[in-house]
Amino acid sequence: MDAVRESAMRSKDASFAMQGLSREIRDQALHAVAEGLVADADKIVAANIEDMAEADRQGLSKVLIKRLSYDRAKIEESVRSIHSLMDQEDPVGKLLASTEIDTGLILEKVSCPIGVIAVIFESRPDALVQISTLCLKSGNAVMLKGGSEAKRTNQALAVSIISSIRKVDERFNDAVQLLSSREEVQLLLAQDDMVDLIIPRGSNELVRSIQASTRIPVLGHSAGVCHTYVDSDADLDMATSVCYDAKVQYPAVCNAMETMLVHRSVAKEFLPRVASRYAQAKVELRGDEETRRIIEANEASEADWSTEYNDLVLAIKVVPSLEEAVRHINRYGSHHSDAIITMDEAKARAFMSSVDSSSVMWNCSTRFADGYRYGLGAEVGISTNKTHARGPVGLEGLVIYKWRLSGKGHVVSDYVGPEARAFTHRKLT
Amino acid sequence: MDAVRESAMRSKDASFAMQGLSREIRDQALHAVAEGLVADADKIVAANIEDMAEADRQGLSKVLIKRLSYDRAKIEESVRSIHSLMDQEDPVGKLLASTEIDTGLILEKVSCPIGVIAVIFESRPDALVQISTLCLKSGNAVMLKGGSEAKRTNQALAVSIISSIRKVDERFNDAVQLLSSREEVQLLLAQDDMVDLIIPRGSNELVRSIQASTRIPVLGHSAGVCHTYVDSDADLDMATSVCYDAKVQYPAVCNAMETMLVHRSVAKEFLPRVASRYAQAKVELRGDEETRRIIEANEASEADWSTEYNDLVLAIKVVPSLEEAVRHINRYGSHHSDAIITMDEAKARAFMSSVDSSSVMWNCSTRFADGYRYGLGAEVGISTNKTHARGPVGLEGLVIYKWRLSGKGHVVSDYVGPEARAFTHRKLT
Repeated sequence: MDAVRESAMRSKDASFAMQGLSREIRDQALHAVAEGLVADADKIVAANIEDMAEADRQGLSKVLIKRLSYDRAKIEESVRSIHSLMDQEDPVGKLLASTEIDTGLILEKVSCPIGVIAVIFESRPDALVQISTLCLKSGNAVMLKGGSEAKRTNQALAVSIISSIRKVDERFNDAVQLLSSREEVQLLLAQDDMVDLIIPRGSNELVRSIQASTRIPVLGHSAGVCHTYVDSDADLDMATSVCYDAKVQYPAVCNAMETMLVHRSVAKEFLPRVASRYAQAKVELRGDEETRRIIEANEASEADWSTEYNDLVLAIKVVPSLEEAVRHINRYGSHHSDAIITMDEAKARAFMSSVDSSSVMWNCSTRFADGYRYGLGAEVGISTNKTHARGPVGLEGLVIYKWRLSGKGHVVSDYVGPEARAFTHRKLT
Repeated sequence: MDAVRESAMRSKDASFAMQGLSREIRDQALHAVAEGLVADADKIVAANIEDMAEADRQGLSKVLIKRLSYDRAKIEESVRSIHSLMDQEDPVGKLLASTEIDTGLILEKVSCPIGVIAVIFESRPDALVQISTLCLKSGNAVMLKGGSEAKRTNQALAVSIISSIRKVDERFNDAVQLLSSREEVQLLLAQDDMVDLIIPRGSNELVRSIQASTRIPVLGHSAGVCHTYVDSDADLDMATSVCYDAKVQYPAVCNAMETMLVHRSVAKEFLPRVASRYAQAKVELRGDEETRRIIEANEASEADWSTEYNDLVLAIKVVPSLEEAVRHINRYGSHHSDAIITMDEAKARAFMSSVDSSSVMWNCSTRFADGYRYGLGAEVGISTNKTHARGPVGLEGLVIYKWRLSGKGHVVSDYVGPEARAFTHRKLT
């Protein structure tokens, strides 16, 4: 048996042991992790300095080296996040529904941990702390695989976290495990009988490659091709401001707008106005033929409609109708976050029900699609999946439910045949 | 492009078109399907008679031929199910949560269809009607693949359903599609960018082979190795009655008990008593060494602990503690449905929180794990998945949610920097 398989089996056993942990013990573990990070700060920072020096020797870019940094200020930030996580509502043990099946036979649907979560992340070491504590809070065992450029930091963090939680309760002994070699990722992706969910944290390429190589459910999104549709009934000042924000405020992220769709009847008035705003921010515009008859823009090719630029580049298309805008978004988009600008509520409703995206928006910027802005507390990630969890995902994405049926000796044979008892099926919540 | 790919793309387009369908239109489609089945009864029954004659010529067993039967009585049953489905609460458009992000910026979490559901089923033609109507009710497009032994019946049913719904609204044109050849299954399983969920209906082998051959989420269970643990504090009359029901009432199904675990302190009293009940029903007992010292039983091998007999066979093990019972169940079970018999509530709670199964039960028969008995209305299936939907799954397993954010021109740049506005994050529901 390879080491990854053995690790996965220990994680599975840990996840069984963790099913019954109370909130108090899980929060004690979080508290211990926070204290441990502070106590081990010297070792962690020293390991990080080595990683950064090595990265510098390897000629990594300044941007990547900066991402790698995990100093005392970052440790304090992690500690603050852990304390705020402790304050959050317990995602485990929530009564989601309750039904009286018959007198004395009560059915309850109760939230519970999923089991074993595998997390594969690139560079940022704070992701290791964040995701481990999210898993501990929700009672899940976690298997971590970080980027090789942060290996010393990840190792120091994992050693600190593991030794802290082991002191709290022996059921945490295998709750957090760190894999270290690159080859282990492929082995990990094959453990579909042990690992219940994979969360990739990193580039679109990372997410795509993981999605393509495993049968384990993957929570994430591999692209963010977001749209704003400026309707014939849009307030054009509002449209200008929102479209500017959606493209320019932070273009490098998944919820930034990549394509703007403009209704034909307002294109002549709106496009020159918004183009002059974009010119101030040096946004490169790529338009379809109709757009280029109205404003100066490069020619958009078919490929532009499905490209995530993550940069100050915007594709623009003039459309004849709301229906055509919806069709374009459903066809070319990534089902992430898409907005309509209109003063007509009926059209907004039609857009929001017809666009098949994780977030659909009316008269606001796609940039709002984010767990913090949505008020979800800790963010597990953004998902474009169509099952389990969709859009910005908080702690509730790390739990599932079980059915709890309590009786007084009830047997099914009493409910069949000519003298069968009837079920009451009375909703209690 | 192969025909299955083309079909899947048309299903995807249909699913987009169906996102915006009101409950009224979806229920009209169901009504039309019911009327169509009655109007097309002659054709459907004639096709079924041909399938059954062919099955007889091929030498299929009487049991299989009986399963294949879809006569006028079955049509009436389907029609009744469709009417009861129309009466059920709409699973689509439910407001699951609502938050004020800031003044005038309202976030809503709303249930919506998943998209494209593929259903692969064996023999029973009524499954085709049931699953198509469940998908129509929940606004999903469905791709159906039935067993070849029912191909004429399935074809007649699909023709009837498709022509009925097309008359209601053109958005239903590609809502239901039937694949016909066996080779098409493998192609279907590869459409992970078009198909959002697969529901297999049939044998454990079918489910396992599908789970092993696709990256599309599969809703189902491939085994039902269910346990009852008779605790030291059990009422032994109750334990006898419940264990008898769980094994004998209908042994061929997934929620029947396959292994009985008995606490050492009650084994000498309980085992002879329950064994004499089982003897009346001619249940074959297979026990561990300790069991065989108390009652007559065949020897249980390691393989017995993870075998789903689906028959009048029961494995029995004596355990020293509740903890050991839980460990056995989590290790050997299929995480389907497991029960404890005890008068001690604290032990029952510990068992139910520690056993990692879709249904955990106290003082009642595992045979209750079923969508109808749980009061879920229409049953999509039973799932042992750890994400999305678990245990008996009703219509809610065919929906997901989207986030709807409505503003008045809100932009993210107002919420960053030194003069940032604060979010209110006020829960509205």
